[in-house]
Amino acid sequence: MAEKHPEIDQVIAKLSKLLGDRCSTAAAVRDQHGKDESWHTVEAPDAVCFATSTEEVSAIIRICAAHKVPVIPFAAGTSLEGHVNAVAGGISIDLNHMNAILRVSPEDLDCTVQPGVRRKQLNEYLRDTGLFFPVDPGADASIGGMASTRASGTNAVRYGTMRENILSLKVVLPDGRIISTGHRAKKSAAGYDLTKLYIGAEGTLGIITEITLRLYGIPEAISAATVSFPDIEGAVQSVIQTIQNGIPVARIELLDDVQVDAVNRYSKLDLPVQPTLFLEFHGSNASVREQAEQVSAICRDFGAGDFQWTTQAEERTKLWQARHDAAYAAIALRPGASLWATDVCVPISRLADCIRETKKDLDESFLVAPLVGHVGDGNFHLCFVIRKEDPAEMAEAERINARLVERALSMDGTCTGEHGIGLGKIKYMHLEHGEAVEVMAALKQALDPDNIMNPGKIIPARAAE
Amino acid sequence: MAEKHPEIDQVIAKLSKLLGDRCSTAAAVRDQHGKDESWHTVEAPDAVCFATSTEEVSAIIRICAAHKVPVIPFAAGTSLEGHVNAVAGGISIDLNHMNAILRVSPEDLDCTVQPGVRRKQLNEYLRDTGLFFPVDPGADASIGGMASTRASGTNAVRYGTMRENILSLKVVLPDGRIISTGHRAKKSAAGYDLTKLYIGAEGTLGIITEITLRLYGIPEAISAATVSFPDIEGAVQSVIQTIQNGIPVARIELLDDVQVDAVNRYSKLDLPVQPTLFLEFHGSNASVREQAEQVSAICRDFGAGDFQWTTQAEERTKLWQARHDAAYAAIALRPGASLWATDVCVPISRLADCIRETKKDLDESFLVAPLVGHVGDGNFHLCFVIRKEDPAEMAEAERINARLVERALSMDGTCTGEHGIGLGKIKYMHLEHGEAVEVMAALKQALDPDNIMNPGKIIPARAAE
Repeated sequence: MAEKHPEIDQVIAKLSKLLGDRCSTAAAVRDQHGKDESWHTVEAPDAVCFATSTEEVSAIIRICAAHKVPVIPFAAGTSLEGHVNAVAGGISIDLNHMNAILRVSPEDLDCTVQPGVRRKQLNEYLRDTGLFFPVDPGADASIGGMASTRASGTNAVRYGTMRENILSLKVVLPDGRIISTGHRAKKSAAGYDLTKLYIGAEGTLGIITEITLRLYGIPEAISAATVSFPDIEGAVQSVIQTIQNGIPVARIELLDDVQVDAVNRYSKLDLPVQPTLFLEFHGSNASVREQAEQVSAICRDFGAGDFQWTTQAEERTKLWQARHDAAYAAIALRPGASLWATDVCVPISRLADCIRETKKDLDESFLVAPLVGHVGDGNFHLCFVIRKEDPAEMAEAERINARLVERALSMDGTCTGEHGIGLGKIKYMHLEHGEAVEVMAALKQALDPDNIMNPGKIIPARAAE
Repeated sequence: MAEKHPEIDQVIAKLSKLLGDRCSTAAAVRDQHGKDESWHTVEAPDAVCFATSTEEVSAIIRICAAHKVPVIPFAAGTSLEGHVNAVAGGISIDLNHMNAILRVSPEDLDCTVQPGVRRKQLNEYLRDTGLFFPVDPGADASIGGMASTRASGTNAVRYGTMRENILSLKVVLPDGRIISTGHRAKKSAAGYDLTKLYIGAEGTLGIITEITLRLYGIPEAISAATVSFPDIEGAVQSVIQTIQNGIPVARIELLDDVQVDAVNRYSKLDLPVQPTLFLEFHGSNASVREQAEQVSAICRDFGAGDFQWTTQAEERTKLWQARHDAAYAAIALRPGASLWATDVCVPISRLADCIRETKKDLDESFLVAPLVGHVGDGNFHLCFVIRKEDPAEMAEAERINARLVERALSMDGTCTGEHGIGLGKIKYMHLEHGEAVEVMAALKQALDPDNIMNPGKIIPARAAE
């Protein structure tokens, strides 16, 4: 646990004066804000402030900045690499009260929301407008957290990630100043791209308090299917061929046999326990039919069975909820266990090699780790189902994870496609980026010279010094 | 003209030793490298170095950095806001010899090129692979320059701009170190997005020496058409409706009557001299037909005549070459005149208002300025055809341009959709970005503390101090 900051009591006194009982030092509240959904051990902040406006976030940060006390943003707490853990103590700013949808412009296909808005809340709100927001990580994450971790999901192969779907941000800087990173024009060549700098910065350069998002019209036709393969190789090759042929699939998701088994149990499905693709097609009636026929023919070439169609909207929702719950289904395989979810992303031409070698590691290991992924992007996950208390299990997960990361990097890929760096991947930053880490450290130093914004994340200690 | 740097002779001596006659101080060479296609007056560098490799760019920059001498990258020289002018003297690095296509991966739909590769050269090279690179500013620009100015073009409405189509960059930093900003994975959540930071940085943070680009399969079917309208309002409303309906047009370009007249003369077309849309549809045969029918119906609703189809590939090429030559066609209206091309971008819901008010300004002015644009993105251009020698003409262009920018900003737009800041728009940076300019200045200071990389661009003097 971090040593107590010498001025923390003064800071908490000032914050309590500002916020009343919206500044809490209760142990249960602090513990809840000191961890996410990963295996990382709770590291509680010294206090939690429940903010209600951009100006209040600014006021909180100004108090913390004056005393060089760490500040960590928090909303849904569904990150997967220890992003919110208060490794140096300090103040957690809870943004869940900032959950208003501020503006929807159907004619411009965009909207502006506060960071505490959840992705499901947004899509429920939008339903009557005929629009939707496509980015969908497994959890019902907050839009602010999704922006900060550069989140992605099942629709990214067609609609892109948070990176492609944010037009601009409002940000409170590490000294409390408030900026807008851009406007609502669809494109701009006016200066440095601050919007993209803050997307994926994991709260280390400031706190996002408003997000302007792109929206899409709900397609005229949507159809979903599952298709099973005798081996994982055939499933992966079908995905590669589909992408290389430029077929604009909306979703193309792989679950290995272990994951299908877990999903069947958790979500009460009865899929054949084989490597399986979950597919969805968006477009006009004619184009959806055309796409489905093309993909079906490819899958047959690689030994697949028939497409199992889910024609009803409710069935479709059930199918995708099951996919989104894949990680929870994995944990449920072993009561009392924890989740260690990792992800990598490689060029699609290397995906089959990467998955084959990874499955070989798993076959030779005593650990259980379902494999699931947004394979249309070359992105896949392992979910280690482990007992954190068992050093042998932790060491084995660490070993397989390290081999996975090194394998992805050797294939010109990345150590994380969508989960982010947080605490868990920080040790791979130099291996992936080399000297570029020093550039990131220089940017961090320029904007946050006292290293108060979510310290200990993204920038490895050596580079941060 | 800039005062001579006290150590420039030493620097040129070292560079001549390094490069031999690839370091030139000839007046004609220096003048050619001291201007782009804009109205800005030549400001020549003290010498021009013709680099042949990343390592050589690094060596040149190390010499300049040791003496704090400015460095300006140069390739096609087709920028439009004075981006390459050597306002503080220094060394121009000409990258035209670095024009190799290093790698094409059809299975990953990507390639890596050197910065001097031209966009037409790349597409000619790719033709046999069945792939193409969509970003197409009017000029036959270099890929390095397009990256540095966040360029765009007629295909952006469907395929995005340089921002969306670059996977990673190799960059020489202001101190000569070489970094890669990323890998070939389609997405990554591993640290700050340095790729996006360098896209649009206009050479102020380093020099791009390799670019990894996304490619696309040439569509099964392509069809192009023109359609004329009795008034510009109908043309703009048709575009807005098309975008709001989510029809995936590949290109939807507006030319006002003045521009159509110029294009007819310059490119030997015989279009009716009326506001006109140039359209292109990409997809399967069925989807192209479907899209064309939908857009045609919308245009009829807004008073258009029939679509004029260009079915032959050569006719189509001629049509789009004419569109790309719009600026040259504008200059040709008035022999001896110069071009002052400006552009703004607004949310599509404000496009009709923005164009209407701008046309009113032009109707009331004595200047000739065709209006043309990538209106599907809310982005349009004015091309002032002016005599630079005439202060009254320059003042009038300045006045109308200022009103255009202020109008776009008041509509939550941007002062430039695709041309960039350079010298010409720097005065609007504070108006557009407010306090965020200070953040940009802090980033610049962190990476280039001696302000040697293309000084005088993007960051206004007050913020740069």
